[in-house]
Amino acid sequence: MLSKLRELLIGKTLKTEELAGEKLNVFWGLPILASDAVSSVAYAGEEILYVLIGVLGLMSYKYMFYAALCIVILLFILVFSYRQTIDSYPNGGGSYIVAKDNLGTIPGLTAGASLTIDYILTVAVSICAGTAAITSAMPSLLQHKVAVAITMLVILTIGNLRGTKESSKLFGVPTYLFIFSCGVLIVTGIVRHFIFGYSPAPLYPIPKAIGDITLFLFLRAFASGCTALSGVEAVSNGIPNFKEPSQKTAKSVLGLLACLVLFIFGGLSFLATIYHPVPVTNVTVFAQIAQQVFGKNIMYYIMQITTAVILVMAANTAYAGLPLLLSLMAQDGFAPRQFSQRGKRLSFSNGIIVLAVAAGVLIILFKGDTHLLLPLYAVGVFLSFTLSQFGMFLKWHRSKALGWKHKSFINGLGATVTLITVTLIGITKFLHGAWIVFIVIPLLVYFMLKIKNHYNKVVEQIKLSNNQRPNIGMKTNNDQHVIILLGTLNKSFLKSLNCANSLSQNVVAFHVSTDTETTEKLKKKWKEYNAGIPLIIEHSAYRDVVGPLMNFIESEDRASKHGETVTVVLSQFVITKWWHNLLHNQTGYFIKSMLYKNRNVAVLTIPYIIKE
Amino acid sequence: MLSKLRELLIGKTLKTEELAGEKLNVFWGLPILASDAVSSVAYAGEEILYVLIGVLGLMSYKYMFYAALCIVILLFILVFSYRQTIDSYPNGGGSYIVAKDNLGTIPGLTAGASLTIDYILTVAVSICAGTAAITSAMPSLLQHKVAVAITMLVILTIGNLRGTKESSKLFGVPTYLFIFSCGVLIVTGIVRHFIFGYSPAPLYPIPKAIGDITLFLFLRAFASGCTALSGVEAVSNGIPNFKEPSQKTAKSVLGLLACLVLFIFGGLSFLATIYHPVPVTNVTVFAQIAQQVFGKNIMYYIMQITTAVILVMAANTAYAGLPLLLSLMAQDGFAPRQFSQRGKRLSFSNGIIVLAVAAGVLIILFKGDTHLLLPLYAVGVFLSFTLSQFGMFLKWHRSKALGWKHKSFINGLGATVTLITVTLIGITKFLHGAWIVFIVIPLLVYFMLKIKNHYNKVVEQIKLSNNQRPNIGMKTNNDQHVIILLGTLNKSFLKSLNCANSLSQNVVAFHVSTDTETTEKLKKKWKEYNAGIPLIIEHSAYRDVVGPLMNFIESEDRASKHGETVTVVLSQFVITKWWHNLLHNQTGYFIKSMLYKNRNVAVLTIPYIIKE
Repeated sequence: MLSKLRELLIGKTLKTEELAGEKLNVFWGLPILASDAVSSVAYAGEEILYVLIGVLGLMSYKYMFYAALCIVILLFILVFSYRQTIDSYPNGGGSYIVAKDNLGTIPGLTAGASLTIDYILTVAVSICAGTAAITSAMPSLLQHKVAVAITMLVILTIGNLRGTKESSKLFGVPTYLFIFSCGVLIVTGIVRHFIFGYSPAPLYPIPKAIGDITLFLFLRAFASGCTALSGVEAVSNGIPNFKEPSQKTAKSVLGLLACLVLFIFGGLSFLATIYHPVPVTNVTVFAQIAQQVFGKNIMYYIMQITTAVILVMAANTAYAGLPLLLSLMAQDGFAPRQFSQRGKRLSFSNGIIVLAVAAGVLIILFKGDTHLLLPLYAVGVFLSFTLSQFGMFLKWHRSKALGWKHKSFINGLGATVTLITVTLIGITKFLHGAWIVFIVIPLLVYFMLKIKNHYNKVVEQIKLSNNQRPNIGMKTNNDQHVIILLGTLNKSFLKSLNCANSLSQNVVAFHVSTDTETTEKLKKKWKEYNAGIPLIIEHSAYRDVVGPLMNFIESEDRASKHGETVTVVLSQFVITKWWHNLLHNQTGYFIKSMLYKNRNVAVLTIPYIIKE
Repeated sequence: MLSKLRELLIGKTLKTEELAGEKLNVFWGLPILASDAVSSVAYAGEEILYVLIGVLGLMSYKYMFYAALCIVILLFILVFSYRQTIDSYPNGGGSYIVAKDNLGTIPGLTAGASLTIDYILTVAVSICAGTAAITSAMPSLLQHKVAVAITMLVILTIGNLRGTKESSKLFGVPTYLFIFSCGVLIVTGIVRHFIFGYSPAPLYPIPKAIGDITLFLFLRAFASGCTALSGVEAVSNGIPNFKEPSQKTAKSVLGLLACLVLFIFGGLSFLATIYHPVPVTNVTVFAQIAQQVFGKNIMYYIMQITTAVILVMAANTAYAGLPLLLSLMAQDGFAPRQFSQRGKRLSFSNGIIVLAVAAGVLIILFKGDTHLLLPLYAVGVFLSFTLSQFGMFLKWHRSKALGWKHKSFINGLGATVTLITVTLIGITKFLHGAWIVFIVIPLLVYFMLKIKNHYNKVVEQIKLSNNQRPNIGMKTNNDQHVIILLGTLNKSFLKSLNCANSLSQNVVAFHVSTDTETTEKLKKKWKEYNAGIPLIIEHSAYRDVVGPLMNFIESEDRASKHGETVTVVLSQFVITKWWHNLLHNQTGYFIKSMLYKNRNVAVLTIPYIIKE
């Protein structure tokens, strides 16, 4: 039942060999990775205006356009900087790898932790913003905001569990639709204004200016808009996801991505200077522009729907990025091993599930509100950019390879610009929530080091050298201690007894008496049956089975003075219907976990199948 | 850590022999069992008024008093009826037992299911009413109603997990305090009115009468007040909880209980006819009487606090009753076996936990509102009364023992009266929620029969007859199949190998290859190490370990043509810190549960302890 449902939702299990077929070309890779940057126009522009409009009034639109241009310029610097990273790291040059290779473990883990947080926030923020696009068009859904957001999260998670390539096709079409609608919006908006002289009154009153532009205000606006750039990391981290030649494909995707952002973010910011949208609670700024340009007709609704969908796709960028990052950290032993295993559909399903759960918790905690989540956002990604670019800078300096001066200049520029940006974001957003990130990152790094430490200890303790030899063959007297834990005398016991007899000639039955009546009955039956092995009965005042059993094993062990392994036989009912498990004591599991703590005990479980 | 916390909360583990010391005498047994009936004045009176006041206005108080008297009369009939049950069933004559013995399985289970529902409702209703008493005195807590209720539930549950006797002392004192304060209230109220001529105006306006009393209206009022009587069942069901002579103790408790209800319920209903409280949303009727009689001074607050506490104690009656009932049904195989086991403190802890969870869910679902829960209530308990009394009636008829006519008359009267009551309750409350109960009871009975059916099948399948003999001793050639599942060559494998070698001379290692690189490394290391047993490697395209292993076992089995048990050896890391489990694949558990489904496989687990 359950496995059929899973197959319906995420598809048939794929062979490991099918991995190569799951890779992305430029055409499908672009939408999956560009959606994050492109879609952020839906909220980044609004965030910039939100900072400015209370102070500058009508002047805000001009500075909003400048801030958007600065962000696009920053993006182009990053693109050039990252093209060099892609060339140097063909197996995926995410910030984690680059920083770890060139700066050391702690900077690498800091980059990894920063990105982890930011990917989770990308999902939460994008889905909340997508919900806002929907509720702008359908205000009746406003009260079910969180439910709408969680539904989108679930659909997205299922899509990603199906695997990278299918999800890119599934998710690529609406990205192109959004890009196309944005094009139509920008062209229509410009043509109607400049050719037909259309300039409608703003939909909402623009607040009066109460001050002039200051550097700090402009920087705050700029920092608020920087949330757009995490897609860059996803491209350079995800090189193994691209079709061969994967480095070239990745570089093309990165270049196209920057051009798209230039066109759409620039174009829409320009439209804002004409149509004067105002940040209000229920209708997004982007929706206001669309309403002004098109009127509230079919194009307006198409715009809102494609916006919602592309924002969900932006969340999808993180679904491509975080599981891959976690798998890299897991391979190095800094994250639980399970993250490095591919699921039924060859996606890193554990990473996908962890991402979905974490984002879901954030959405519920912050009640689906983009404004509350945004201050936490972008610190992580710019911190990782800085570490990565600084790492590249050092790499060129150390290698002194051909053209190292030119290359180190580009990466040095990237590092400087991103360092300035992360400082700006950290300062301007600190009190609004960024402090949380500054606590969580060191905590994550600490846990990553603890995890590595544990794995190191395990490897050390289980390492086998060639001169540690096995005991060859059986001992001649076959007196391996075997103890059958006996509850009642039944067929399940007989099966255990037969199995034990075939393994050793030193088998005893052991019964823990918690109730005299039952024990007397057992004694009588045992006498009648005559199983041919001794029965030992211990009374347990505290209704505890493990204690007396452990005492007996230890006394046996002492008697034999061998210190060799004692085998305990437990029979276990195997039940066909899952709910029948509720009808049987699960003490077997408890007994086993207690016994395992004793180095010299092996547990032989004999299943007994109950037919229905 | 966890076990220390548990010890702090519920106390040290007790020996089975200490069971006798945990029993109740009359003095401590009365508060624990009377609280349910006595406390119901806090809401039963209000419910009666609630039905009447909209129609009858000022006349309501007279009929409220009559309805209360009818309920007390019903209680006395039940007391006489139940004294006979206590005499006949020294081991606990709950409705389940009496109905099952005299009427058959289905009526017995119907009584059991009805009581189960009613005990859960007792807890939910009493705690919600207790919360209402607190919020009457402290209106600022009104918005945290559900949180207050859940807190009380948790405290109560912990008290009961500590065990019956301690909880009765812990809980007995406030019951006596409540009885005492009620006495003071009744005496003061009567004295102030009749001797000092004090008759204050009602605190809230009494609605105008819009009709006259009708039989149906009076019966609805009566049915609404019948929620008071589930304590009776708890006394006769809980006989084994009483000190020797337990039947005499139980009968004394039952008699005293009825007298207390007569005095308090009668007295307070009489006060209502003088002081005219009005059912409103935020202040209980009972609180209004106390405010009128005492003024809003210290006595008023003491009254509210003791009311809240005794209502929680009423919930405690169910904590004494339901776990015992479930343990009886579990012994008969109609409920999961786990309910019949005593916990660390000798209480039936599984029953207590199930009760707490179910009541908690109800409280949250119904948002802590007594009015919404009450229509579901009392159907169950009166249905079980009817079945039980009818069972007693038949018992006397069949036995024709000394005085059978007299005895069957009393139980027949009880059966008739309770049958009429349950019909009344069912009809008057059906649309308000009682229909839910009429659906749930048959469902519970159905599941109980399914459970019994499963246990019967298990017993049948594992029954061992004396002529099914074990294979004596070992086979001479020691060729029992043993397969070691090999991941990597390490010390943990060496331990498994030594253990396997000591049990058989037919040991092979089996490796499932999911990744060619790892497998090549393993092959090389295996060659160098030379473990002295063959290594079989199977490739798994779908990264699945169990499938290839099962195929191999089946082929081996076919080859040997013995159909005998094959032993699979799995090594398992044992980890000292619980969170380290997150760092290791739990595939071992999965592999085992898949292997157990094959009748001829035994699994030998070799623990390998990782030191920290």
